[in-house]
Amino acid sequence: MYTPPLARLIEQLQLLPGIGPKTAQRLALHLIKRPDKEVQALAQALVAAKQKVGFCKICFHLSAEPVCSICNNQNRDRSTVCVVGDSRDVIALEKTREYRGLYHVLGGVISPMDGIGPEQLNIEALVRRVTKESVEEIILAISPSVEGETTTLYINGLLRPFTKVTRIAFGLPMGGDLEYADEVTLARALEGRRELD
Amino acid sequence: MYTPPLARLIEQLQLLPGIGPKTAQRLALHLIKRPDKEVQALAQALVAAKQKVGFCKICFHLSAEPVCSICNNQNRDRSTVCVVGDSRDVIALEKTREYRGLYHVLGGVISPMDGIGPEQLNIEALVRRVTKESVEEIILAISPSVEGETTTLYINGLLRPFTKVTRIAFGLPMGGDLEYADEVTLARALEGRRELD
Repeated sequence: MYTPPLARLIEQLQLLPGIGPKTAQRLALHLIKRPDKEVQALAQALVAAKQKVGFCKICFHLSAEPVCSICNNQNRDRSTVCVVGDSRDVIALEKTREYRGLYHVLGGVISPMDGIGPEQLNIEALVRRVTKESVEEIILAISPSVEGETTTLYINGLLRPFTKVTRIAFGLPMGGDLEYADEVTLARALEGRRELD
Repeated sequence: MYTPPLARLIEQLQLLPGIGPKTAQRLALHLIKRPDKEVQALAQALVAAKQKVGFCKICFHLSAEPVCSICNNQNRDRSTVCVVGDSRDVIALEKTREYRGLYHVLGGVISPMDGIGPEQLNIEALVRRVTKESVEEIILAISPSVEGETTTLYINGLLRPFTKVTRIAFGLPMGGDLEYADEVTLARALEGRRELD
């Protein structure tokens, strides 16, 4: 019902995840009303990001350079590697400002239902990293879904002969209410209890 | 924390209405993983829509042509003009498939708080349309907010000397539950009651 160029834009916006017909329409009508420069800037940012961004050849984090800024940072602790599923997890961990080691991005988790086995993930490169470099600790920080757990156990089995393998703690979220926590989380919280100093 | 081209894309996406930092990040990471062609198509749709789409010179609906497809459609009833705030409202009304007349898009509603007076809207052009063409009925279909009501009353005052002016009905939405309707809606529903056939 919209004029063709606008209909095409709405169609394109609808391909984005979480953007339904109503939102696509709202975004398109917003963009139509913005200055030329602003729309050009968005279009250019899209093309530039797609053209320039690839994966770090060491850790597979998204990077515009062959080696990402984290792997390139000589102030970081090179003896610890934190293994995550996705580049988004790197950003989440970086935001805590608590971790000073390196990362390794798997690019997903093992999920036979979706045809994703260990070969589809950056696991071989991880094993190479651990056996060739002096990695003292591998921290597995993979989300605790069924697939995530499988991946955690699989990588633990692979790397245990070569180095210390730990995983992040699961338990009650800070600010969370015990009463509203699910049983699995509570069981994990109990299991992971620690003696107070 | 992201590599610069990606950070720029996230920044640009965040300028869109209703897109916060988390959604912008999710969209950007999604786009990075899509084929080149898909990202190019979105960027081109953006630029093309912005370049080609303007306003119909008769009704001010968004259009890639000087006169929109509705105004150009000789099968439509040219004696009735429905006045709406926004192009989105035209689409909403077209979807009902109930209306066969023409439209007039005001481009907003009178809102002194936002510095929008009658001069900022396409009201002068509406008066010209009504006085120069044989318009038999003006249907005001403006959302019933405080600003919308002001606009409705203002336009009614202007056009009443020249033609019949009506407004769409307000009342209980279809499928709505009387119990949960607000008082203003219920009062409007009572006020607008009609005798059954």
